Amino acid sequence: MRAHSQQVSSPLSGEELRRLDAHWRAANYLSVGQIYLMSNPLLTEPLRAEHVKPRLLGHWGTSPGLNLVYTHLNRLIRSRGLQALCIWGPGHGGPAVVANSWLEGSYTETYPDITRDAAGMARLFRQFSFPGGVPSHVAPETPGSIHEGGELGYALSHAYGAAFDNPGLLVTCVIGDGEAETGPLAASWHSNKFLDPVRDGAVLPILHLNGYKIANPTVLSRLPESELDELLKGYGHEPIHVTGDEPAAVHRAMAQAMDTTADRIAAVQRAAREEGEMERPRWPLIVLRTPKGWTGPAEVDGLSVEGTWRAHQVPLSAVRDNPDHLRQLEEWLLSYRPQELFDEHGAPRPDVLTCVPDDARRLGSTPHANGGLLVRELPLPPLERFAVPVDKPGANLHEPTRVLGDLLEYVMRETAGRRDFRVVGPDETASNRLQAVYAASGKAWQARTLEVDEHLDRHGRVMEILSEHTCQGWLEGYLLTGRHGLFSCYEAFVHIVDSMVNQHIKWLRVTRRLPWRAPIASLNYLLTSHVWRQDHNGFSHQDPGFVDHILNKSPEAVRVYLPPDANTLLSVADHALRSRDYVNVIVAGKQPCFDWLTMEEARVHCARGAGIWDWAGTEDGTREPDAVLACAGDVPTQEVLAAAQLLRHHLPELAVRVVNVVDIARLLPSEEHPHGMSDFEYNGLFTPDKPVVFAYHGYPWLIHRLAYRRTGHQHLHVRGYKEMGTTTTPFDMVVRNDLDRYRLVMDVIDRVPGLAVRAAAVRQGMEDARLRHHAYIREHGVDLPEVADWTWDG
Amino acid sequence: MRAHSQQVSSPLSGEELRRLDAHWRAANYLSVGQIYLMSNPLLTEPLRAEHVKPRLLGHWGTSPGLNLVYTHLNRLIRSRGLQALCIWGPGHGGPAVVANSWLEGSYTETYPDITRDAAGMARLFRQFSFPGGVPSHVAPETPGSIHEGGELGYALSHAYGAAFDNPGLLVTCVIGDGEAETGPLAASWHSNKFLDPVRDGAVLPILHLNGYKIANPTVLSRLPESELDELLKGYGHEPIHVTGDEPAAVHRAMAQAMDTTADRIAAVQRAAREEGEMERPRWPLIVLRTPKGWTGPAEVDGLSVEGTWRAHQVPLSAVRDNPDHLRQLEEWLLSYRPQELFDEHGAPRPDVLTCVPDDARRLGSTPHANGGLLVRELPLPPLERFAVPVDKPGANLHEPTRVLGDLLEYVMRETAGRRDFRVVGPDETASNRLQAVYAASGKAWQARTLEVDEHLDRHGRVMEILSEHTCQGWLEGYLLTGRHGLFSCYEAFVHIVDSMVNQHIKWLRVTRRLPWRAPIASLNYLLTSHVWRQDHNGFSHQDPGFVDHILNKSPEAVRVYLPPDANTLLSVADHALRSRDYVNVIVAGKQPCFDWLTMEEARVHCARGAGIWDWAGTEDGTREPDAVLACAGDVPTQEVLAAAQLLRHHLPELAVRVVNVVDIARLLPSEEHPHGMSDFEYNGLFTPDKPVVFAYHGYPWLIHRLAYRRTGHQHLHVRGYKEMGTTTTPFDMVVRNDLDRYRLVMDVIDRVPGLAVRAAAVRQGMEDARLRHHAYIREHGVDLPEVADWTWDG
Repeated sequence: MRAHSQQVSSPLSGEELRRLDAHWRAANYLSVGQIYLMSNPLLTEPLRAEHVKPRLLGHWGTSPGLNLVYTHLNRLIRSRGLQALCIWGPGHGGPAVVANSWLEGSYTETYPDITRDAAGMARLFRQFSFPGGVPSHVAPETPGSIHEGGELGYALSHAYGAAFDNPGLLVTCVIGDGEAETGPLAASWHSNKFLDPVRDGAVLPILHLNGYKIANPTVLSRLPESELDELLKGYGHEPIHVTGDEPAAVHRAMAQAMDTTADRIAAVQRAAREEGEMERPRWPLIVLRTPKGWTGPAEVDGLSVEGTWRAHQVPLSAVRDNPDHLRQLEEWLLSYRPQELFDEHGAPRPDVLTCVPDDARRLGSTPHANGGLLVRELPLPPLERFAVPVDKPGANLHEPTRVLGDLLEYVMRETAGRRDFRVVGPDETASNRLQAVYAASGKAWQARTLEVDEHLDRHGRVMEILSEHTCQGWLEGYLLTGRHGLFSCYEAFVHIVDSMVNQHIKWLRVTRRLPWRAPIASLNYLLTSHVWRQDHNGFSHQDPGFVDHILNKSPEAVRVYLPPDANTLLSVADHALRSRDYVNVIVAGKQPCFDWLTMEEARVHCARGAGIWDWAGTEDGTREPDAVLACAGDVPTQEVLAAAQLLRHHLPELAVRVVNVVDIARLLPSEEHPHGMSDFEYNGLFTPDKPVVFAYHGYPWLIHRLAYRRTGHQHLHVRGYKEMGTTTTPFDMVVRNDLDRYRLVMDVIDRVPGLAVRAAAVRQGMEDARLRHHAYIREHGVDLPEVADWTWDG
Repeated sequence: MRAHSQQVSSPLSGEELRRLDAHWRAANYLSVGQIYLMSNPLLTEPLRAEHVKPRLLGHWGTSPGLNLVYTHLNRLIRSRGLQALCIWGPGHGGPAVVANSWLEGSYTETYPDITRDAAGMARLFRQFSFPGGVPSHVAPETPGSIHEGGELGYALSHAYGAAFDNPGLLVTCVIGDGEAETGPLAASWHSNKFLDPVRDGAVLPILHLNGYKIANPTVLSRLPESELDELLKGYGHEPIHVTGDEPAAVHRAMAQAMDTTADRIAAVQRAAREEGEMERPRWPLIVLRTPKGWTGPAEVDGLSVEGTWRAHQVPLSAVRDNPDHLRQLEEWLLSYRPQELFDEHGAPRPDVLTCVPDDARRLGSTPHANGGLLVRELPLPPLERFAVPVDKPGANLHEPTRVLGDLLEYVMRETAGRRDFRVVGPDETASNRLQAVYAASGKAWQARTLEVDEHLDRHGRVMEILSEHTCQGWLEGYLLTGRHGLFSCYEAFVHIVDSMVNQHIKWLRVTRRLPWRAPIASLNYLLTSHVWRQDHNGFSHQDPGFVDHILNKSPEAVRVYLPPDANTLLSVADHALRSRDYVNVIVAGKQPCFDWLTMEEARVHCARGAGIWDWAGTEDGTREPDAVLACAGDVPTQEVLAAAQLLRHHLPELAVRVVNVVDIARLLPSEEHPHGMSDFEYNGLFTPDKPVVFAYHGYPWLIHRLAYRRTGHQHLHVRGYKEMGTTTTPFDMVVRNDLDRYRLVMDVIDRVPGLAVRAAAVRQGMEDARLRHHAYIREHGVDLPEVADWTWDG
């Protein structure tokens, strides 16, 4: 393989080339050192087995390519005074990014014990992939990173999220050819149809084809170049190729390619910003082809390594036991000529650092990679302005998400100048009844428009693409660079991003322990179009399990809210939008729902997270209730209130307490979650020994998993969704899942000691009502009038 | 918009065109009827409000396009005698596919009460999206479908899965332009690099651009045609365009396009099969652009509907209340001229049916869409052939997945002729140590190869692409068409397909209740590279929560196994590969693991699912034990046995029982899961009142969620993974999560009444050992010798 690029001339002088190469070699040396060495970091003595780590864990393959990109980005930033951020998609190359940030000084400023000298270098090497040290990937611990390099697929959507509303920023994004095979990455190429050349920054994808994954060639690397070009042009890019394995030639070609892309980006932005150009541009993209494990051992034990999948992890695996491997490692390290790169104290020599930008322009020091430094308070209104009036509970109906839409419109409008708030959703903003926001901002759209289109806007901050992955990635990138947002999603399909949100929560878990990482705005989900109201989509659209998934994760970073009406939704959303470093999951309906609480009551109730609704029960305050009806979620709350009403009418002597839970983690013991209740509080709400019939929005066993340690757990009976989903009416859904008012009344009757006999006729009435329902719906296809027209008469 | 296609001549005679159009109009009529009508199906009397459903639920927008495709596929199948299957990606168009299968007779053969006459038509209409009826999507209930139309993104990978090893089959796949924005779909375009023109069938994608999603234009529909062509060519296809809104012209162009693609596919296959052509072909693809809601109301209430997003669901929404809407609906229905299409009894007239193929070639009757009709028993070996020898427990170590790899090689070899078994994985087959299979079959690969490549094979049946979505979709399509397979995946990253497996389980839940759907082979997951052994990847690669996700789903369709060693893995895998209609999740390690059970013991133990390992405990059989040490998973089993050994040495008088659980659903009550234990059985294993210290592979609360109803639940203490993940040694991982042997011993001591005082010194010894561990690992980066070299001495 010889180096070539589409550009012929080179902008590099011989001296500049020599210095760039020195930087690259230094980064390569430091990468290998991290993977292998425990001591003797500068090879001041002959390499011996005991200098080598006992467990060799790391990924060499992608590192030299990342080092090349970092080196040339440095040059570009410095030569043009750019503000840049880089997303390192092939995050297995953790040692590369760490090496570069140590070279430029960012690492030592972040971790003062890792000094820029021999002692610091020894600590840098030792900590890598070592117990108690730093991960082998680009990670939260890595200065300059907003992107964990563990799971693949999210680099490009993170890059676009970072670029939105950052008009002065260049976001480069290295995409490994393994990552390029994933679905989320494949979808995110079309993000350029949503990037506004006027108000957003630029994204420069660098597709780094080194040809192999762990054990296989990659699809894109084996396409004929013409076919790959068609693909990349079809994605809306103008590809520029840099291919080679001869360092000097690759340096020249890479410097040329970086200059060309920077020129083109500047031209695109100037045309849009100054000349009013409205056509969607073709953004440049670099295809960088260098060998996997470039500059590493060409052969080990008679097998090709450099340029093959065998270079993926640790090319020489038996260094401590095999003298030949030890010798090869020493030769490999010395091939970078460390004595030219580091002085006798281990500090990088000046030549190595000539390409490094100053201060906050260094990739490891940009505040854009530590978004908490930039985040501002959102302008949130007094909630009373949007609250629905509630003279008495249950007198009126509102669509909660529509009410929230008005609040979001306010925030969208108030942030029109600062542009640090976006709403994302997979083509569902209007379906989820948040369309009020369009009055303040249209939907981002750079592709063609037609006369009939509505609310499309080149400068819009509502983001809609039919890819939950892309929505999630955009929002993560946006939040991680110091802005705010909300993701509204059909409840069932948010599982599509289960694995992505895992990684984001892990990120938050780790950054919360890093004092230098400032808190960022929370990732807020509004899950709606939920399991109980999929009247026309049915079973395929029914799954309330995202809450279960979230509650498995680190408790310090996750919050789950199930507001039962419009005002509680406002209160919860307000709290979520003000919060930091959480993933907030809000489950709320878009269908008309009774208003239960005034704004003031809602605020108090949500602050407590769970409470007794005394107006709904029949306690007289002189003794413990006979039974507790508990609920979480809008539909369960309505059924519980209807059950309470039936009990009040039919069994007026029964003392029933109604408890509503908004913040589901309140049910956990206080040791298990920061919002968990003490046993004293729990017993105060639910009693230690009375029957509790709990109507829950999702899978019933979640409530048991949260409450199993409580004294009264054996008296807790939970109803919820048990996979009895289908296309049907709202009330039929609750009947099929035994969450309906009639069943809840029967559950109470069956559990209060002595009541089953005394209330046998009432119980039979409930059975009859269910039979009536079944017959009516089969005939008419709609719910019983007594259910459809039900109102609260308390 | 005028019709055009790249082809000029038309293969259609005027008569044939008239008949095709009649079929299309009939399908359109029946689609509208399903969405709107309760009665008066043939409009034999003027349409009145009471003929219309009270709840209008369905999706018209995509239906006329699907009807066009079905009509022209009929023609193609009939004219060329093809075997074809169609994947209907825009599955919201359920009424379209149902309409066509009723027309061709498949529907009535499947559901005899839905006769092909006026009474049957009335039932067909009424049942659609009606409580107790059929879903509004293409669904398991739809004859001819293997693809649920709820969640989007999986159409094309399902199509490829169906085509693999079906050389005589044409799999057409309609991809909506909304679906095309999703990640899984975007990734699956590259499936053509894995399609063998010799041994596999053909896939014909039909990209149906109607321009809009629910509420937004779609990205692909708004690309300039030249840019879209670049994209599709970059995906490896040769696009053929059919564009129009004038029916006759579109019929002509579509017929021409279908003929052209069929010719090209035949030519490709002939070249590969008969002429030895080795180059990857460019497969044809049709881009079909027709208006959304084509032939529906052009305007409603003064707003454009046909050709816009407003046609997505129900174009006329107030038919029962608004006489103008009612009139428009009647005009719309009559515009299809139903009296020309159906005779006075409501049966389709012969002209309508001339394009319909015969018998099993009808799309609604092909056995490929009811794979259980085709599935054969897998040739599985006697397990003894692959079992590892076990003279005494814990004497030897094996890598369980490597042992399984040998069994898979056998199956791969034995199916070399019949080709109905594939192994899929995201670039992890070798990493997961299953590489023995390569001896029987290489990895499917149609792209370029290099000298250095290993195990790539044009005809291979091991499938590796770095996309869990594509792997899952391929395997689902393969299983649904009557074949077998196994998906090996890193445990943490299988969450990527959480939402896909949801839909597959829902599919199985429904098909199990449909007598005409024959059982298919189970979807088998091998989850390895698990949470406890991510030594060099750390936190980002650690998540054992897929089991929790799976156990939320319909119990009749899900099974979860945690074999503790190599022989139990063989037994479990054998069972899974023989089973039908399940999703089997097997969690097993790839690292060296002690062999505990002989093959015979393993078989018995796995059949029971959970059992006492009496050789590991210190019970004497005369009384209940003092404590139970329970375990599930390979690493927890090792720690429990080490704890049992410590207890035996230090507290020999203590009667400890060791229980191992392989089949985790055994812990559920028998009413909750078919594998659940009775309380009698449970108490026999775990005792009703003794302390149980349970070491579990995953999140500890899962065990509580399964066992909370048991008498002895308050004595159950579970240790497991609690998000304390990082890059570290194996033993440090268990220490960080309090799952280590020393902690388990302390847990027993703390819970056996009276023991805390008596065994204070032993307990202190355990604390000391943990401190020793912390110091040692900080210093050396490896585990204490006493742990690293531990062996079972029982």
